[in-house]
Amino acid sequence: MELGIIGLGKMGGNMAERLRLAGHKVVGFDFNKDATAKLTTDGGLGVNSLEELCKNLQAPRAIWIMVPDGKPVDDTIAGLKPFMQKGDIFIDGGNSNYKESQRRYAELKPEGFNFVDVGTSGGVWGLKEGYSMMIGGDEDVIESLRPIFETLAPGKDEGWGRTGPSGAGHFVKMVHNGIEYGMMQSYAEGFSIMKAKTPLALNLPQIAKIWQKGSVVRSWLLDLTAEALEHNPELDGLQAYVTDSGEGRWTVFEAIDLNVSAPIITESLIRRLRSREDNNYTDRMLSVMRNAFGGHSMKKK
Amino acid sequence: MELGIIGLGKMGGNMAERLRLAGHKVVGFDFNKDATAKLTTDGGLGVNSLEELCKNLQAPRAIWIMVPDGKPVDDTIAGLKPFMQKGDIFIDGGNSNYKESQRRYAELKPEGFNFVDVGTSGGVWGLKEGYSMMIGGDEDVIESLRPIFETLAPGKDEGWGRTGPSGAGHFVKMVHNGIEYGMMQSYAEGFSIMKAKTPLALNLPQIAKIWQKGSVVRSWLLDLTAEALEHNPELDGLQAYVTDSGEGRWTVFEAIDLNVSAPIITESLIRRLRSREDNNYTDRMLSVMRNAFGGHSMKKK
Amino acid sequence: MELGIIGLGKMGGNMAERLRLAGHKVVGFDFNKDATAKLTTDGGLGVNSLEELCKNLQAPRAIWIMVPDGKPVDDTIAGLKPFMQKGDIFIDGGNSNYKESQRRYAELKPEGFNFVDVGTSGGVWGLKEGYSMMIGGDEDVIESLRPIFETLAPGKDEGWGRTGPSGAGHFVKMVHNGIEYGMMQSYAEGFSIMKAKTPLALNLPQIAKIWQKGSVVRSWLLDLTAEALEHNPELDGLQAYVTDSGEGRWTVFEAIDLNVSAPIITESLIRRLRSREDNNYTDRMLSVMRNAFGGHSMKKK
Amino acid sequence: MELGIIGLGKMGGNMAERLRLAGHKVVGFDFNKDATAKLTTDGGLGVNSLEELCKNLQAPRAIWIMVPDGKPVDDTIAGLKPFMQKGDIFIDGGNSNYKESQRRYAELKPEGFNFVDVGTSGGVWGLKEGYSMMIGGDEDVIESLRPIFETLAPGKDEGWGRTGPSGAGHFVKMVHNGIEYGMMQSYAEGFSIMKAKTPLALNLPQIAKIWQKGSVVRSWLLDLTAEALEHNPELDGLQAYVTDSGEGRWTVFEAIDLNVSAPIITESLIRRLRSREDNNYTDRMLSVMRNAFGGHSMKKK
Repeated sequence: MELGIIGLGKMGGNMAERLRLAGHKVVGFDFNKDATAKLTTDGGLGVNSLEELCKNLQAPRAIWIMVPDGKPVDDTIAGLKPFMQKGDIFIDGGNSNYKESQRRYAELKPEGFNFVDVGTSGGVWGLKEGYSMMIGGDEDVIESLRPIFETLAPGKDEGWGRTGPSGAGHFVKMVHNGIEYGMMQSYAEGFSIMKAKTPLALNLPQIAKIWQKGSVVRSWLLDLTAEALEHNPELDGLQAYVTDSGEGRWTVFEAIDLNVSAPIITESLIRRLRSREDNNYTDRMLSVMRNAFGGHSMKKK
Repeated sequence: MELGIIGLGKMGGNMAERLRLAGHKVVGFDFNKDATAKLTTDGGLGVNSLEELCKNLQAPRAIWIMVPDGKPVDDTIAGLKPFMQKGDIFIDGGNSNYKESQRRYAELKPEGFNFVDVGTSGGVWGLKEGYSMMIGGDEDVIESLRPIFETLAPGKDEGWGRTGPSGAGHFVKMVHNGIEYGMMQSYAEGFSIMKAKTPLALNLPQIAKIWQKGSVVRSWLLDLTAEALEHNPELDGLQAYVTDSGEGRWTVFEAIDLNVSAPIITESLIRRLRSREDNNYTDRMLSVMRNAFGGHSMKKK
Repeated sequence: MELGIIGLGKMGGNMAERLRLAGHKVVGFDFNKDATAKLTTDGGLGVNSLEELCKNLQAPRAIWIMVPDGKPVDDTIAGLKPFMQKGDIFIDGGNSNYKESQRRYAELKPEGFNFVDVGTSGGVWGLKEGYSMMIGGDEDVIESLRPIFETLAPGKDEGWGRTGPSGAGHFVKMVHNGIEYGMMQSYAEGFSIMKAKTPLALNLPQIAKIWQKGSVVRSWLLDLTAEALEHNPELDGLQAYVTDSGEGRWTVFEAIDLNVSAPIITESLIRRLRSREDNNYTDRMLSVMRNAFGGHSMKKK
Repeated sequence: MELGIIGLGKMGGNMAERLRLAGHKVVGFDFNKDATAKLTTDGGLGVNSLEELCKNLQAPRAIWIMVPDGKPVDDTIAGLKPFMQKGDIFIDGGNSNYKESQRRYAELKPEGFNFVDVGTSGGVWGLKEGYSMMIGGDEDVIESLRPIFETLAPGKDEGWGRTGPSGAGHFVKMVHNGIEYGMMQSYAEGFSIMKAKTPLALNLPQIAKIWQKGSVVRSWLLDLTAEALEHNPELDGLQAYVTDSGEGRWTVFEAIDLNVSAPIITESLIRRLRSREDNNYTDRMLSVMRNAFGGHSMKKK
């Protein structure tokens, strides 16, 4: 079928490619002219405006928005609307907060537009292995997009599904990322403990490789870790600095709002915050307190 | 080759079976007569004493000990020694503390015996899928056992390896289990958050299934969870009560001894302790304090 | 000076009393007629409407609002406004979110009204010992209320102060409560550990009493705990169920928004959530997972 | 009465002084000659050997050992024994592990010696304010030392007591320190959050001072913090590096051994470990993983 894609970056570009290779007509827009040009060269149609994009798609149009969450999504929708008509479908495949997706749905529905939220997982590997997609919105609308989902997914009926009404896609993806934080932290702590056990001189790349087969902790994340360790066992040249892209903190907020205790996901986020604190006030204050009551020496800068 | 196995339970029994099916001669002992009888019926040799076991193996003997950690391992070694001779190999395939394994190695080596520690992962699935094995001890001794490891492992050269000197096998397995705690807790928290989001009426078995393909959190543990959820989505009939078998707390102790901060693995253990606290004193004291300073009401029993 | 007080409950009633005893004129309103009647009996003036309250105060009026946070505060302000005039002062002494206080200030200021946010600590002990007050708002307005603060505080120049512009009072009070969560949890855990050390048969009330003098952990919270333990060392008859009144979770949200890692305050909140989870899904899922991969038995309900 | 003191450092020296000022005869030994000389100058008796120390005390001797835990305590006891006689009392006032104290008691008792373990709190302030002492051992032996305890304590019958049999003193002191970790971390996190809220430009020394009177979080630790902040509000010149002297990690180990969940005390310890990790492997691994699955950029060194 036909699909418009806004945002041809790391994720959107690969998705366009996967769809195109499967025979779908892909019309794509990006502020980066090189990206649109590349799409055309590859056999799709790269266009230079939202208007042009809409004109090159037959109604009812389906337009996949793959841009950073927040204002860019709203701006994209606002920019597209004048060129779209009732029955057209907006698909937000990015990492939007599910509450925003619910709001957008509630705003667009009365205007006759459809809105579907798709939590997309798979990262840079999706082109090759397919994307896991958790989808929220109206059943008939999602059903009408089936050819797209079947192509993007790892398998025809695998790795994708409607998880509920509007917002359910991004909600589930948000929690997915929260779990991801906890899993990553689990591995990282374990490898750190082994690294620190210097008398045993453990070979971390080898251990990761052993665990890939038959162990209880085998996973795709472990596969990637094994490969990364093979290339750089000491993780040389890197800073112990970890960013977060939002879904982790949303998961934490949501857990608290729901009165669900989620200590591990929460602490995994907190540790990322900690990684970005330089000479933090907290620890300096602890040092000062120890000195104040016990005369313990303080490490000076 | 020939292998003696002490302990024919859930793990040892399956290992004997996997070895036997591959053509190895297996001589097994268990205090449970049914287990030894079954081994004989299946085509191995079940014996009724440690002496008999040793007599049915040719030197240099290799004897795999698969019994609960601690005294049972020491008792087994002590019971076997009179019937063994220099060059024979003790293999501890159970969940022993790596420090105990190092002690046993240090005690047995001067007496002419070999000792190898094998951290074994794979649980009840090992018979079919093979066992992940992390092995500590002398290189030549481990090499002499290669046919055994190649058979038990998921693949000839996959899922097993010597991770270092004596103790390195059980150390790595210990950390493996620590990571396992963290991963399990991550999933469990995530599913709890989704369960609590009642307005979305999320279908947890379906979501687990979606995630199995293409998502960042796909793993063997998720595969098992998806299957379990399909059979019992509400987890009905179960108590929120989680035991721990030792490696988790050893990992925590080790991390602290090594001055490695491992908050997630640690908290995962602590949450298991919490699951077994009934009407705990801590929370009652918090309730009392709130009442004492703020006049907040206390929930009575 | 003159002060109007809305809300004559546990906190507001005691504050009225403390002010009245020091010679201030107190005009009070509460939906509970008994509370207003009591104020009149005690020597203040209890009134039956917001209008009456305003009429009995000379401009510029100062009105202390001591009602639950959220809608009740907005409703009270809206109810008072028609009877107030430019230059009058609204004082929110309750546990409002600092962002709400900033919003109220921003709304009231252009209308000519003053708004001051006062984070008030001291609980049921304030009548006798005085209240700790952290105050946000315009300096001259706060200064004009000095006689009130000097009376309510534990000492003329002690235990109160302007901590910054609008919102700074409630912000500091919010963090105060976050710290309070952590301190309470610290004590409660410590006493639980001692309680569990049964071979030593430790006498917890005695230990609390010892610590009150000379120890590093001496505090007012410990004083209260010692007294509570003396009356009920086993904490009999209570449920391990801990509520939270909001400031704790706001502190957690704020820390994350500020990218400050605050693991202890956060976990103290999470443990309160946990105390209210009955047969929680998280732990049941852990139990199911252990069974799925290791065949470990599950505790049935 | 008479007391021998081994170790005249920060703690022991002040205790000697406090005892001497109250009229007790103090005989002291330290490897540091200046410390012994000072004791003599001050009016006590500084000696140059353990033998000399014993000779200058009348039986039954009471000797307070104030040296680092572990080997130094055992060495001191072994060094003293030849010059002591049945009925003499060893007092370990340092920060020994309670299990060591129980072992020492069990070893010394059959030899006719008495052993008392005293957990001592109060730090550098003890000289002026008195020491909080938690004491384990035989009742009659502790009773015979009453004059010493009454002098060292903040008040005759305040701040000290026998908390149970041998080991109970050091056990309770250990937990005391665990609580101390949690309290310190609570304050430090709270102040960090306020520091980060730059738009409010909060004055931390002023806030600490306000809280000292009437707030729920008032405590001796807060008093010290307020004073420290007054001198150095920015905590300039310090490193975010926090050491730990052992009791915290013992508390964590003990809690786990007792199956008591103590997340806050545990995490407070873990954060101290974290403060000493430089460019830690854990966070670098997280960064690598994020890059591996999502193509997220890594911060290079």
